[in-house]
Amino acid sequence: MNKSMSIKFPNFDDDKLHEECGVFGVFGYDEAARLAALGLHALQHRGQEACGIVTCEGKDFFSHKSLGLVDSTFSSKNVIERLKGRIAIGHNRYSTSGEPALRNVQPLYADMDFGGFTVAHNGNLTNAHTLRKVLVKRGSIFQSTSDTEVIVHLVAMSRQRTVIDRLIDAVKQIKGAYSLVASAGNQIIGIRDPYGIRPLVLGKLGDAHILASESCALDIIGADYVREIKAGELIIINDSGVKSLFPFGDNPSRFCIFEYVYFARPDSFMEGRSVYETRKRIGKELAKEAPVDGADLVVPVPDSGVPAAIGYAQASGIPFELGIIRNHYIGRTFIEPTDTIRHLGVKLKHNANRQFIEGKSVVLVDDSIVRGTTSRKIVEMMRDAGAKEVHLRISSPPTAHSCFYGIDTPSMDELLAHKMPVEKICEHIKADSLAYISDDGLYQAVCKAKRNAKVPQFCDACFTGEYPVECVDYNSNCAGVKVTDLHERQQISKE
Amino acid sequence: MNKSMSIKFPNFDDDKLHEECGVFGVFGYDEAARLAALGLHALQHRGQEACGIVTCEGKDFFSHKSLGLVDSTFSSKNVIERLKGRIAIGHNRYSTSGEPALRNVQPLYADMDFGGFTVAHNGNLTNAHTLRKVLVKRGSIFQSTSDTEVIVHLVAMSRQRTVIDRLIDAVKQIKGAYSLVASAGNQIIGIRDPYGIRPLVLGKLGDAHILASESCALDIIGADYVREIKAGELIIINDSGVKSLFPFGDNPSRFCIFEYVYFARPDSFMEGRSVYETRKRIGKELAKEAPVDGADLVVPVPDSGVPAAIGYAQASGIPFELGIIRNHYIGRTFIEPTDTIRHLGVKLKHNANRQFIEGKSVVLVDDSIVRGTTSRKIVEMMRDAGAKEVHLRISSPPTAHSCFYGIDTPSMDELLAHKMPVEKICEHIKADSLAYISDDGLYQAVCKAKRNAKVPQFCDACFTGEYPVECVDYNSNCAGVKVTDLHERQQISKE
Amino acid sequence: MNKSMSIKFPNFDDDKLHEECGVFGVFGYDEAARLAALGLHALQHRGQEACGIVTCEGKDFFSHKSLGLVDSTFSSKNVIERLKGRIAIGHNRYSTSGEPALRNVQPLYADMDFGGFTVAHNGNLTNAHTLRKVLVKRGSIFQSTSDTEVIVHLVAMSRQRTVIDRLIDAVKQIKGAYSLVASAGNQIIGIRDPYGIRPLVLGKLGDAHILASESCALDIIGADYVREIKAGELIIINDSGVKSLFPFGDNPSRFCIFEYVYFARPDSFMEGRSVYETRKRIGKELAKEAPVDGADLVVPVPDSGVPAAIGYAQASGIPFELGIIRNHYIGRTFIEPTDTIRHLGVKLKHNANRQFIEGKSVVLVDDSIVRGTTSRKIVEMMRDAGAKEVHLRISSPPTAHSCFYGIDTPSMDELLAHKMPVEKICEHIKADSLAYISDDGLYQAVCKAKRNAKVPQFCDACFTGEYPVECVDYNSNCAGVKVTDLHERQQISKE
Amino acid sequence: MNKSMSIKFPNFDDDKLHEECGVFGVFGYDEAARLAALGLHALQHRGQEACGIVTCEGKDFFSHKSLGLVDSTFSSKNVIERLKGRIAIGHNRYSTSGEPALRNVQPLYADMDFGGFTVAHNGNLTNAHTLRKVLVKRGSIFQSTSDTEVIVHLVAMSRQRTVIDRLIDAVKQIKGAYSLVASAGNQIIGIRDPYGIRPLVLGKLGDAHILASESCALDIIGADYVREIKAGELIIINDSGVKSLFPFGDNPSRFCIFEYVYFARPDSFMEGRSVYETRKRIGKELAKEAPVDGADLVVPVPDSGVPAAIGYAQASGIPFELGIIRNHYIGRTFIEPTDTIRHLGVKLKHNANRQFIEGKSVVLVDDSIVRGTTSRKIVEMMRDAGAKEVHLRISSPPTAHSCFYGIDTPSMDELLAHKMPVEKICEHIKADSLAYISDDGLYQAVCKAKRNAKVPQFCDACFTGEYPVECVDYNSNCAGVKVTDLHERQQISKE
Repeated sequence: MNKSMSIKFPNFDDDKLHEECGVFGVFGYDEAARLAALGLHALQHRGQEACGIVTCEGKDFFSHKSLGLVDSTFSSKNVIERLKGRIAIGHNRYSTSGEPALRNVQPLYADMDFGGFTVAHNGNLTNAHTLRKVLVKRGSIFQSTSDTEVIVHLVAMSRQRTVIDRLIDAVKQIKGAYSLVASAGNQIIGIRDPYGIRPLVLGKLGDAHILASESCALDIIGADYVREIKAGELIIINDSGVKSLFPFGDNPSRFCIFEYVYFARPDSFMEGRSVYETRKRIGKELAKEAPVDGADLVVPVPDSGVPAAIGYAQASGIPFELGIIRNHYIGRTFIEPTDTIRHLGVKLKHNANRQFIEGKSVVLVDDSIVRGTTSRKIVEMMRDAGAKEVHLRISSPPTAHSCFYGIDTPSMDELLAHKMPVEKICEHIKADSLAYISDDGLYQAVCKAKRNAKVPQFCDACFTGEYPVECVDYNSNCAGVKVTDLHERQQISKE
Repeated sequence: MNKSMSIKFPNFDDDKLHEECGVFGVFGYDEAARLAALGLHALQHRGQEACGIVTCEGKDFFSHKSLGLVDSTFSSKNVIERLKGRIAIGHNRYSTSGEPALRNVQPLYADMDFGGFTVAHNGNLTNAHTLRKVLVKRGSIFQSTSDTEVIVHLVAMSRQRTVIDRLIDAVKQIKGAYSLVASAGNQIIGIRDPYGIRPLVLGKLGDAHILASESCALDIIGADYVREIKAGELIIINDSGVKSLFPFGDNPSRFCIFEYVYFARPDSFMEGRSVYETRKRIGKELAKEAPVDGADLVVPVPDSGVPAAIGYAQASGIPFELGIIRNHYIGRTFIEPTDTIRHLGVKLKHNANRQFIEGKSVVLVDDSIVRGTTSRKIVEMMRDAGAKEVHLRISSPPTAHSCFYGIDTPSMDELLAHKMPVEKICEHIKADSLAYISDDGLYQAVCKAKRNAKVPQFCDACFTGEYPVECVDYNSNCAGVKVTDLHERQQISKE
Repeated sequence: MNKSMSIKFPNFDDDKLHEECGVFGVFGYDEAARLAALGLHALQHRGQEACGIVTCEGKDFFSHKSLGLVDSTFSSKNVIERLKGRIAIGHNRYSTSGEPALRNVQPLYADMDFGGFTVAHNGNLTNAHTLRKVLVKRGSIFQSTSDTEVIVHLVAMSRQRTVIDRLIDAVKQIKGAYSLVASAGNQIIGIRDPYGIRPLVLGKLGDAHILASESCALDIIGADYVREIKAGELIIINDSGVKSLFPFGDNPSRFCIFEYVYFARPDSFMEGRSVYETRKRIGKELAKEAPVDGADLVVPVPDSGVPAAIGYAQASGIPFELGIIRNHYIGRTFIEPTDTIRHLGVKLKHNANRQFIEGKSVVLVDDSIVRGTTSRKIVEMMRDAGAKEVHLRISSPPTAHSCFYGIDTPSMDELLAHKMPVEKICEHIKADSLAYISDDGLYQAVCKAKRNAKVPQFCDACFTGEYPVECVDYNSNCAGVKVTDLHERQQISKE
Repeated sequence: MNKSMSIKFPNFDDDKLHEECGVFGVFGYDEAARLAALGLHALQHRGQEACGIVTCEGKDFFSHKSLGLVDSTFSSKNVIERLKGRIAIGHNRYSTSGEPALRNVQPLYADMDFGGFTVAHNGNLTNAHTLRKVLVKRGSIFQSTSDTEVIVHLVAMSRQRTVIDRLIDAVKQIKGAYSLVASAGNQIIGIRDPYGIRPLVLGKLGDAHILASESCALDIIGADYVREIKAGELIIINDSGVKSLFPFGDNPSRFCIFEYVYFARPDSFMEGRSVYETRKRIGKELAKEAPVDGADLVVPVPDSGVPAAIGYAQASGIPFELGIIRNHYIGRTFIEPTDTIRHLGVKLKHNANRQFIEGKSVVLVDDSIVRGTTSRKIVEMMRDAGAKEVHLRISSPPTAHSCFYGIDTPSMDELLAHKMPVEKICEHIKADSLAYISDDGLYQAVCKAKRNAKVPQFCDACFTGEYPVECVDYNSNCAGVKVTDLHERQQISKE
């Protein structure tokens, strides 16, 4: 197949925010690579574009990376058996900027004078380009366009003595959101940024230790959940056991609240909370804040809207129904839509359950509106199926600001909530009514307290525009445009 | 990847009955191949192993077939544009017997003296082997092990004059279940077997006519539903319009009742009934027949158990909760489970939503039990998650007999309900209680009447062992073992 | 790579006649498939487009076919070990008419009522289309556009009792040139057409018997040459030994004389003659018939012109020099020549050895001129390298007629020797002189006798236009245009 | 195909020394990438494992590299059109040490603070490992195991101001043999090491300039030969024209004499000499030094032995005959030889021309004996074909020492001429007589003077053990074992 011929069909998920990555680490298990593959499979929702595993046995490192899903990448016995050792580091990657080259796939690896070093990163560095320029001037040669490579070069260039000191030296220079899993010298290291923006948990499987972005990756292998890595914590796991350091200062945690709304898997726990339960509570709160009189049905936008819709239905007493059916067999690409075909209004991924919708007043529950293209289509689909009224309820506040901490958001100018107030959005998407949950309502549903305006309990920059970490590489207005003078030079295509 | 190295991971779906095929036909649309690809995509649940489209323009036929899903097979512009013409026939195939060779992928095509002939088939012929032996003796050369090729050779050998007469001549000789879509001489032909066991509907898109296994394939392209093809009907669609014949006798319809229970997509209509609504009614009936006192939650086995679980929850007043989360990113193969890994009880596809299950009395709703391996695991998963009680409710009667009409069932000896009574099954899967819906309950939920024992309204052979059509090729005990003396000779592998 | 994007670069070999096929058979060797792969490799010069092997063990047949060369097709241990049995049939194919589909790759296989039947064919049937029409009318379904499939259907339809009788019945109906190797019922069968136009030899390796197009395929496996299969002979090899029949009449042999000139490998023996030695004799004869006074060098057009050039040099006393160097690393396709690049006169495959050519009078020796495009370029290349005079000598008579017996020739209208006399050809290619060997000279070099005009000792239709076998499917003028009404209907593309 | 399953069949070429690389550069031609692809095709004999092209347009660089031959790598229009710009650098690579990873394929590219930098290298650095250790200690991260990457890091780390000064700074630190073609800042740079061990020529095509390993790469695109780059010369080609510098001292040239014997293409010129002519002169000299009384035939070991054999035949008056036929259709891999097959003595690549050999006294001419395995087999093949006597003549002196300057040689212990004197070698290979050309004879044939023992005119270390450049990385005994402590750590496999 000529790849350039296949065109991505626009579908509902294209109008979502996307988590950029999942990380996983194993120390002390005989088939570490197999565990890592299973863990990455459980974290597949955090990144579907590419994945990789690096293992370590003594002084030797083994790596396999590929574009594609975890199950196809690691289905070959040959591949998995080549990945020897009791240590493994894994990574899932979501495509952010049209650079799906293999060299950007993590974990990254480098030969250093102390031996091999490998690292996987969930998050985004906000001063990566600035640091990169300095490093290149000093003679570092970058092989990828990945921000994570900056960390690798900082470690290589560090004048500290031990691997751990060099890694601390490197991490002190970076800014942004980062949950890192690294390995060097027969140990694995987990690091969470000073605000703990992205998640990272510690688990145990017999004598082995596991690091993972979410607890669902512990469940798949039957590992026990131990605790979360804390904001600003560096954890070292080796044959002597687990050691914890806090070399990056002492900040109050600002965990990403959107993990609760959409990113995390519903069966994960975060900060001791069930994600599914939290989403249901958000739905219940939403039912209180924004009830719909005389509605006949609560219909989730599948699949992410389901828990909030169940919560909304239970709180309101309006029946929950699967009014929209989703086709799960859709891959990344499909036939190019010609004008004729486009005109048909093809619904590749969703279909209204007509008989239930016809003549009814419907409460649609979704988790967010980004550009609004999807919401508009789905309201139209409900109307085409004969809905009398369509009321849209959103289980997050309006998304009016870009994220620079590892979430793929469009630039601010494309965000519907940045461009117009809620009433206009309602008109734009042609719903009979539209309501978002309030900031305080969301906080209350998540942590049983209102938002602390002085020291917010979470990072909610995408709703409020209050960025906990400085965005060094970005324009002062934080409109989401990267400063990319260095980048443009390198248009190397590899095959 | 070395295919032979990758091993299918056992997962819940492996213990389901599987629809073997979906068919689709277009007459009179400029981009017929694109419509067919979309239609096949909507029918993907009826067969995921392989797919194909044959189009016709004047006297020329164009074909593209491939192992794999519809979206990847037809994503290339090159491929789709080569499929010229206003006529298209499409087919999805489910692997039945370990013969996933390309030559078995439909639609089949043959050059005859009147020109090209192509046919796609959903169902199974019960006298195919017997006819094949006769045809081979007469000099026919078979290229596939597909039953459908028998039809092609019968048409080629027929001494009738017109294509239609030759096709009628051929179909009169075959027995079994068959919904056929064929094309020859600038027309498409739809045929449903005398009992109408497998589905086939007629739709309209502007001036074009569509034939499809299910109405959801009309929805995806915005086509209008016209009617079902009747049992024993042959329908001819050409430039003169639509013509209907009944050359195969006059039987009362015996549509497959399991299409309602599991095979069809919930957003399809069958015989005027919404599949989703019917499944909910089955769930409600099940709640009446087999209530669970003091239960805390109704939990569906995702995804197929969801509508019946909603029905059960609504009828019983017990809250509906997503107690099991499904990972949709699982493909056909994954890493081979070593003993160590197998020992971990890896849950590749499902995970219990622990917080909801712990300490609760759970009503699990699923659609069927085949070998019982899945049910046993899922009950265990509930217990591991802390369920106080687990009550399993099944939205179909016990599956105690093999199907010979186009459904992939294990041989009778492997069917749990053939081997033991319900109480023993309950013990075997370690549930606190187990109940299946009754035959009459199922009939009532579907057609608002009890089962007519003399002339049953549906084919329910898998529950009752009453086979409406003679199983010529099979052992007299109908235990599901094919008579395959001819077959074994041909072990040709092509690449 | 998008195949349709790559374009065949015109090179010298494109202006050659091409042998269409090589065949190979083994009976009674434990690793028959390995022998067949080696044999086909030795016969690679007879067909480079595709290859295949079918083996037989008891009642089971195993097949592997692929587009591409023998060494890449059979390099995988998996592939070769799947081909079980002590019987193997192999085939190399040269692309003749732009139908490089896998279904045309031989050996062909069919299930018949007596069991499996497989056949490989070197040659061309001159009444295949006529027979095909009759067979289709009787209900035969063709899967390929290969002439060979006619034989398979004739066997399937035959009313004779034994396999051998059915094969004889079939072969009696076909006309043309055919060296066949077939297998059915634990035996292999070799057949050579009544005129013995294409070659077929019998060899022995221990207790095993070998059939092959050329003796070089015996050498590669260390087998002993036994004898040639005779014109009109059918040979049966099974556990009882070798049995010979002559069921197709009794003709004087008319072996293709061009096998000596160009097709066969120089290290093969044909009819007891060394091909290399025969080519040298042709060169010597040419030196006698067409000497060049004052020439400095004899330069072969590599590689096929080398033996005749050595002969010419030895007979004339003029030094033999490699004045043209050939690059052997050229595959089937290369970069598309843009106008700019074309303008450079790129020499992908050959380069003049400038220092030797400059200022010299050169005798160029080649084996034939087909369209003349090559000869013109090579003369120009000599002049560019500074040759004072260029005299072209051709080791065959003028090729003025198409071949219908298994050689890929352009239609008569494209043959330079059909369009103009020798003097005009000399002008056209801009040589200082041009001479072809005479018919009698060629015969004398090959068989030490002049051409017997009444009963020629060889088939030389391409020189003389005297066709020993009727060309039923072709226009009366034998201009090389096939009658293809049936064909055009079937434009099925498979992938 | 499962690559690891296919096994390289031992063949004659495996017992040759192998040139490791070819380089090519273009400045100032609109379709520079196309020229580079053609040039690399002409240089394919210098490296068949992998190839790559990097082009430059303004500040942007474009790259395509692949394992495999030039023609298949660059046959796609898509690929070649992506390589924009009027500057191109190309490289062919021969596999040296079982590390055929894509990341080792050249040209290498790096982003530096002044912009992009790319380089391709023919030769071998003798202090690469030593330099690499220092660089890694300073924080450089290596991505390949290629020696050439040392040069890239040295340029990146240089404190000089201009690209040229940084490159000079870098090259002054390296030792060994190197013909480099690099590009940065809209210019291409050619460098030849102080002894000019590997070749590099300058050509012109209209206004464009070309750098290439051999003149045959100029011929293929119709470019004019200008001159050789001199030993120790650095040449800069940009819009201002061609500038020559000699920053690396002033040594007498020591060009590799084995380029004349075997590596270079016979149609190339080197130091003003025709390679073909020189080889013929070596053959003539050999005939004088080592005549064979009463010999009937001179037979070359194809293809490399042909020119020397023609020279030998012309000088001795013994007829030249193609007594061994070579099969050119052999790729890199073929079926694994089982014991049975191995026992057959399969001749995949060569076959004796039996009729010519039988009863004759044969002079076999080859260019070298490395391990002797081939020579032994080929003598045996002659005997099997009935040769009365076999006299082997070698057109180079005994190869008794490893090469560290870019030629793939086995370690000294495996070299037959290191292990035993000529008489023993003759016994070992079972020839009737064996003679090598003398050192002085070779020098005389090449440069018309005896070897100047004090300042030899060529590098002949493989014959004499006199290494002109220090082998820093190697054991003091120069036995060919690399010091690889650093290497062993990095066993990363990428796919």
